[in-house]
Amino acid sequence: MIFQFPIRVFYEDTDMAGIVYYANYLRYIERARSDWVRNIGVDQNAMRAAGQVFVVSRVEADYITPARFEDELVVITDVVKVTKVRMVFDQKVFRGETLLFKALVTAACINEAGRVVRLPAEIKVSD
Amino acid sequence: MIFQFPIRVFYEDTDMAGIVYYANYLRYIERARSDWVRNIGVDQNAMRAAGQVFVVSRVEADYITPARFEDELVVITDVVKVTKVRMVFDQKVFRGETLLFKALVTAACINEAGRVVRLPAEIKVSD
Amino acid sequence: MIFQFPIRVFYEDTDMAGIVYYANYLRYIERARSDWVRNIGVDQNAMRAAGQVFVVSRVEADYITPARFEDELVVITDVVKVTKVRMVFDQKVFRGETLLFKALVTAACINEAGRVVRLPAEIKVSD
Amino acid sequence: MIFQFPIRVFYEDTDMAGIVYYANYLRYIERARSDWVRNIGVDQNAMRAAGQVFVVSRVEADYITPARFEDELVVITDVVKVTKVRMVFDQKVFRGETLLFKALVTAACINEAGRVVRLPAEIKVSD
Repeated sequence: MIFQFPIRVFYEDTDMAGIVYYANYLRYIERARSDWVRNIGVDQNAMRAAGQVFVVSRVEADYITPARFEDELVVITDVVKVTKVRMVFDQKVFRGETLLFKALVTAACINEAGRVVRLPAEIKVSD
Repeated sequence: MIFQFPIRVFYEDTDMAGIVYYANYLRYIERARSDWVRNIGVDQNAMRAAGQVFVVSRVEADYITPARFEDELVVITDVVKVTKVRMVFDQKVFRGETLLFKALVTAACINEAGRVVRLPAEIKVSD
Repeated sequence: MIFQFPIRVFYEDTDMAGIVYYANYLRYIERARSDWVRNIGVDQNAMRAAGQVFVVSRVEADYITPARFEDELVVITDVVKVTKVRMVFDQKVFRGETLLFKALVTAACINEAGRVVRLPAEIKVSD
Repeated sequence: MIFQFPIRVFYEDTDMAGIVYYANYLRYIERARSDWVRNIGVDQNAMRAAGQVFVVSRVEADYITPARFEDELVVITDVVKVTKVRMVFDQKVFRGETLLFKALVTAACINEAGRVVRLPAEIKVSD
């Protein structure tokens, strides 16, 4: 399943090198994952009220071409693997046809004790 | 009471204008207030566990001279007024003798229902 | 002139109090000002290449009701005063009919020497 | 060469899950790299004036245990490999004896055209 999410680069995202600060790509792709999760019917506010939150356990990120102020970007999110307790996302940030950034992100769901729990039922286990 | 807190400017703080992004001064002065509150014996983690958090209700900020990457700054915090439910801080950011930024910040304490509650006892009401 | 800009609250915007961190409203309203300035035909990348950037000189902000994760907000921007060298914006953040935040923001344009210069011609002086 | 850098967790670093937001670890470890680079005599402001900046090309990050508000952390930075154009850092974030986060970060130096250039001479090529 491929999911698209648009991003506009604002002043807050840039650093004195004139490009998007490297940590901010993690903000960008998290917005896309939150939007995906909302679109499949998961309510993160309700989850949190029930003591559960998503956490990222691993990120492998490649910075290919810098994004700049006012760029219109698209985050492409592909859910490549889902087990009962773990999801892997393949996420890419494009400006038009140009790939700027890509990451493999592993996420899970934990309870208030910090223990990994089953993912919400709306997130279907892949084969 | 005057309280000093040192800040180093890092890449994350700058924007493409080559200076510290304007919202980040609010991060800087909040670090100083958190440090002050810890120094007088208030444990914000315990407060939060008890359902109470500090919130800012008003900021009047003047940006005088920009801070730049690697600058060593000092935040000077003066608690100018404390009532049972409200504190006013006069906060200034200096680089050496040069005043870069100043703000009057009003803060209060709210409970989980969002209602204003009495400030922690460690914060003494001013005359 | 009234200008509207939509904001979705993401994880990155919240803090451990479960609400939007107070400095992030300055990011929100800056996005709205950047969007306004682009809509009237000012190219901030070209300005910067010519050695000029917008800077904020003063903010008066009131925090009225906290925004929360996944809230859909609207920033309402009203340009209340423009002189040759200075603009004043009245900016409000709403969630539906509820006013969450309001600010008066004074901005100017500076050159590489840090001197205030005339605003771009696209920004019309008010009477 | 092992380099230590202290971090205090502030409100700005946390998210509504009550822990440090995942992107902020990249800010933490960048502070440590900037401090390292300054300590070996590289002036990033002078580099930038000469049209050169450091950029990160790859991050492999593992999130092991969450950091929380007011935690006192230490970033341990080990420069594991340096070629003429590339550095690899092994960076770990500890709270006391507890490993919270670790990352392998590859960085390079680019000029204004975005081309990779030689690293500053102060950064010694490893065997």
